[in-house]
Amino acid sequence: MIDQDDIPVVAGALPYFKRLSKKEKEIYIQKMRKERFLRGENIHSGEKDCEGLMIVKSGRLRVYIISDSGREATLFRPVPGEVCVLTASCVMRNIDFEVIIDAEEASEVLILPVQNYQEIMQTSAEAADFTNQVIASRFTDVMWVMEQILFTSLDKRLALFLLDQTLSEEKDVISITHETIAGHLGSAREVITRMLKYFEREGMIEVFRGGIKILDPAKIKKTAGMG
Amino acid sequence: MIDQDDIPVVAGALPYFKRLSKKEKEIYIQKMRKERFLRGENIHSGEKDCEGLMIVKSGRLRVYIISDSGREATLFRPVPGEVCVLTASCVMRNIDFEVIIDAEEASEVLILPVQNYQEIMQTSAEAADFTNQVIASRFTDVMWVMEQILFTSLDKRLALFLLDQTLSEEKDVISITHETIAGHLGSAREVITRMLKYFEREGMIEVFRGGIKILDPAKIKKTAGMG
Repeated sequence: MIDQDDIPVVAGALPYFKRLSKKEKEIYIQKMRKERFLRGENIHSGEKDCEGLMIVKSGRLRVYIISDSGREATLFRPVPGEVCVLTASCVMRNIDFEVIIDAEEASEVLILPVQNYQEIMQTSAEAADFTNQVIASRFTDVMWVMEQILFTSLDKRLALFLLDQTLSEEKDVISITHETIAGHLGSAREVITRMLKYFEREGMIEVFRGGIKILDPAKIKKTAGMG
Repeated sequence: MIDQDDIPVVAGALPYFKRLSKKEKEIYIQKMRKERFLRGENIHSGEKDCEGLMIVKSGRLRVYIISDSGREATLFRPVPGEVCVLTASCVMRNIDFEVIIDAEEASEVLILPVQNYQEIMQTSAEAADFTNQVIASRFTDVMWVMEQILFTSLDKRLALFLLDQTLSEEKDVISITHETIAGHLGSAREVITRMLKYFEREGMIEVFRGGIKILDPAKIKKTAGMG
């Protein structure tokens, strides 16, 4: 059972809550429980867990995947007022992958057990529809992460290109336009400009009109994967 | 309008078709059109396109994303009897990313225009539900691809790719360029060429102009982690 002051959190997170029947609302209030997690504590660890619908009341969660060798990729970070439905994936058809969820900060989470959540989804078309919307939205997030991973290769290529230029010209100032670099790397000028600005903020280079000055070759090498 | 012999294809791809009203079925039959695409032809190229629901009648499509720098990652390959709903993403809430679709082989595709598809989804709860199931299923596919890209070493991915190609084409010679393989695996051509040379030195394959011959499937399976 949750407290009176938790109800606005649930109503805020679930747009359909106010249109649920009295009985359905009672399920939420009676069956939900509040759990507190320490910073860094694991909340959900894949296939063995199917806790149900989670609503973040305070703090921040991190949803990620991890490889056998321990490499991780963060998918999204639910913040207060957001829901996490992947923790109820066992009741969803065609969702067949595992994520891990940690509390990235000390967090309070409201949890509706999976059997009650399933009950609500069966009686309220709007609740089922909302679940699908959240899934679609998470799908979009994941696509963005994936594009970042692909796009990230550009920083490596740009770093390699800069090193190559300094070696071939044997100096730390490269006279070149962003347009030309874009041409070399099969990218667009705007993308190169953005990445160069990022390199500049990281102290690797200084960008000036008509060229680039190398400030931290070691860091550029590291970015190029040669560090 | 589609032909009589296309109707079983539609009915096979959409489990809800047989339960649609006569009027809804007529919308499918009257408004769908059949398009033929050549091998390699582009079908859908991102935000400008919102064609509607696609059903593959013959051939094979490839759904992928491409970065600014031209790197690609294949997400899934709809085959005959499968539907593609991302080509109607403009009518779906919270789906906000762009994919590109090419015909990987000469293909026939049945297309229900987006306005008619939207109409069906509004009148048939089962059609809307099916769309959500397909989205969830594609989400699962994408998570798998992401795990492959992030966590699987390239030699394993390349071996899996070669096995996949030999299985789908049912022969031991694969006609493909290194550039195309790089696109499929989200890698660079040079990297693929290097890895193929390594496979060749190991006696697994023979690389020739325009293709690859499989010499030792058992060893490739082992590299793919299936040995």
